[in-house]
Amino acid sequence: MDRKNDDSRLLLEQVNDLLENNKILELRELLEEYHTMDILDVMENLDEEMKVKLFEVLPIDVSASILEESGSDFFRTMLSLIDVQHGRNILEQMSLDDLTDILSELEEDERQRIINLLNKEDAEDVRKLLGYEEESTGGIMTTGYIEVNENMTAKEAIEHMRKNAEDAETIYYIYVVDNDEKLVGVLSLRELITARDSVVVADLMSENIISVYDDDDRELAVKLVSKYDLIAIPVVDRDNILRGIITVDDIIDVMEEEATEDLYKLAGSSEHERDVAEKPDSTMLEQIVSSVRARIPWLLLILIGGLFTAIILTKTTFVEGLTYVKFLCFVPVILGMGGSVGMQSSSLTIMTLSNNDEEDIDFRTVLKEGAVGLITGLVCSIIIGAMAYIILHSLNMSIVIGICVLINMVVGAMIGSFTPLMLKHLSGDIAIISSPLISVLLDMIGVVLFFIITTIFLSKIVS
Amino acid sequence: MDRKNDDSRLLLEQVNDLLENNKILELRELLEEYHTMDILDVMENLDEEMKVKLFEVLPIDVSASILEESGSDFFRTMLSLIDVQHGRNILEQMSLDDLTDILSELEEDERQRIINLLNKEDAEDVRKLLGYEEESTGGIMTTGYIEVNENMTAKEAIEHMRKNAEDAETIYYIYVVDNDEKLVGVLSLRELITARDSVVVADLMSENIISVYDDDDRELAVKLVSKYDLIAIPVVDRDNILRGIITVDDIIDVMEEEATEDLYKLAGSSEHERDVAEKPDSTMLEQIVSSVRARIPWLLLILIGGLFTAIILTKTTFVEGLTYVKFLCFVPVILGMGGSVGMQSSSLTIMTLSNNDEEDIDFRTVLKEGAVGLITGLVCSIIIGAMAYIILHSLNMSIVIGICVLINMVVGAMIGSFTPLMLKHLSGDIAIISSPLISVLLDMIGVVLFFIITTIFLSKIVS
Repeated sequence: MDRKNDDSRLLLEQVNDLLENNKILELRELLEEYHTMDILDVMENLDEEMKVKLFEVLPIDVSASILEESGSDFFRTMLSLIDVQHGRNILEQMSLDDLTDILSELEEDERQRIINLLNKEDAEDVRKLLGYEEESTGGIMTTGYIEVNENMTAKEAIEHMRKNAEDAETIYYIYVVDNDEKLVGVLSLRELITARDSVVVADLMSENIISVYDDDDRELAVKLVSKYDLIAIPVVDRDNILRGIITVDDIIDVMEEEATEDLYKLAGSSEHERDVAEKPDSTMLEQIVSSVRARIPWLLLILIGGLFTAIILTKTTFVEGLTYVKFLCFVPVILGMGGSVGMQSSSLTIMTLSNNDEEDIDFRTVLKEGAVGLITGLVCSIIIGAMAYIILHSLNMSIVIGICVLINMVVGAMIGSFTPLMLKHLSGDIAIISSPLISVLLDMIGVVLFFIITTIFLSKIVS
Repeated sequence: MDRKNDDSRLLLEQVNDLLENNKILELRELLEEYHTMDILDVMENLDEEMKVKLFEVLPIDVSASILEESGSDFFRTMLSLIDVQHGRNILEQMSLDDLTDILSELEEDERQRIINLLNKEDAEDVRKLLGYEEESTGGIMTTGYIEVNENMTAKEAIEHMRKNAEDAETIYYIYVVDNDEKLVGVLSLRELITARDSVVVADLMSENIISVYDDDDRELAVKLVSKYDLIAIPVVDRDNILRGIITVDDIIDVMEEEATEDLYKLAGSSEHERDVAEKPDSTMLEQIVSSVRARIPWLLLILIGGLFTAIILTKTTFVEGLTYVKFLCFVPVILGMGGSVGMQSSSLTIMTLSNNDEEDIDFRTVLKEGAVGLITGLVCSIIIGAMAYIILHSLNMSIVIGICVLINMVVGAMIGSFTPLMLKHLSGDIAIISSPLISVLLDMIGVVLFFIITTIFLSKIVS
């Protein structure tokens, strides 16, 4: 990976140089040898003005690929800055499933404005695609497939394929339909080019088609592509009419998305937190706000469980008159709150670390997590402190419990993100830390903090 | 999915029928229309004798695909039962990366016996592949690629490709090497078939090759294939000599494997537990033993943290002479142990549920988990009970603490696997349950159990 990073830093410098000196032809020549994704990497590291300048000189197909891969903000900015006809040409080249994804994130009027720029056929396809649920197969399919009629000969089919290859996402599978547009077979490019010219497609195709319905869950498409080792899977409606295909690269994207989603769910967070955390230009404040919003419901749930525990414990203490014993009953909830916020922050840090190669995740993350711990901690400590006052009837002890919860949550959040970061810096690798390990660590830190805080505040009260 | 399940049940019945009546020709005809993976599904549900019978009548290429997808046990059994020459023919057709994976799981002498069945070229390739680390790109690559010399014309290259297409895993990328076998370019089938016959490959190919070294971590291959939307990625050695390729279906397999591995690590378990849990014919006892082995190190770690917590807490209790107060200090470790084993068992259940469509995971799993909880619980309760006796000097209380730990761990393990199973049965979907949710539930159950147990055993002791 070091080699790669050096390469891309070098490229960035070269591009910057050429842009500043307006050497457009040389720039074009240089970039010709690079993959779109590498150009996108460079672009993300340029300042606003240079970004637009670079975008304007790129060939149309590269610009289209760049827009496919970048977010809706970049898309909107670029299209508003460049010439309308140039924009129209780029839109024409974009893959319709990616274009639809971006359009679905825009405001209604902006979406309409862009759809109006498209040619009639594309506009119609995009409107159809926009109608599908995001989590359905229809929501990730593209209409860029090659379809031939079952009555064509191999020669006609190859001709047809060559003519339509440019708009197709994959030419490795050719889908065969009957006169009613119903999917009746599939043909690999391999089979087609090794066949005699005069053979009829219907005799050549495989009729055992693995397909999904356009309202199936997209996870089904992932399962089938993975099980049958496919490069693309056709999507049909309930009348078996071919509506689109899903290619394996989109399947991989879905797999990555779902895997992170699962981890977030397991850790007690939400997609919203991830979206903001992974947006390259989100501010510290945006990140803090989104983290607090995503985590607070889970933390409140844990808080309820913890208070329930505390109440049951106070009921089992048979020693009458000793408030300090009942005070001890709050230890589990104090440790629990610190442990929970710590687990959330370590999960988030591990995930953002593994999704970003760049060095843009550093120890500032620990400060951000500390801030999240502080805000969520304030909320939780007030609630727990109030409950403690109701149960213990001691203002001092309730305040000490509140302080313990707050400090534990701030420290827990910071340790939770610091540990994976430190391990990454030490070993270079992102180590998945087992949650038992983190929870042991946080419990031990939590109880030591409890010891220190009670010694400072309570020794005079109870002794 | 229901449609699919019905289909496969029907197919199973048909196959069984035809096999019993020795209608081999009809059987072959029936299976011709099915995908290898569907035949494998059927085979897994046949009894031993029928399995062999079916395997013997399958066409050689289908048998080869079946062996590629099935485990090493099945591979060994089948090869020992069928005719040597038939076996040789099947081995010839197998993809070398899959064959290598299976061979690496066999005993040394068995491995040698099978390599000796291969033709010289394949045997050499397999020996080379066996030399790579499992986690490296070399460990997942295959040698089934098409390579052409840069000086060939497009026509020659197409001819070469057609001749070698049969042994290739993918013909969609053609790799271009110079006279020293060094990788100098890549060509998509798309570019090749749309080119004029006389063009030289060197002028047609793209020189910006995305490749990995054969000792790189396989995760790097996953990253690059996903980033650049590739269908295959070439693997070169440090001298840039082409050694193999990794196709996108293997990338998907690695992604799935790594995702589960990560979840296991997060939950505090190990690969070994997964392997046994996902082996279709592992016995209840094997599963219990492997689960206990995988989890006990983590549980002991948590136990150490919990005892540390208990000791610190007993030091902070300023009330002298009241053993019951110190007894309360053990509540966090009691709840912690139940919660941890519960998290482990819920993670395992969720993962086995999502990796198996079949109905073979049922409420017996809960009993199995209960047994794991009992065994690990006995170990932990003895250690914690002994420590409690050293600290509290009260045999009664130490026994009660031990009992609490034991019951909490048994109940925690059972609830941990029962909850996802119940949710699956209620909703039909595998719901990922957030760990905060499970831990709240287990804490609440744990403290109620504590309440009940102390009321029964201790009310007479302390009052």
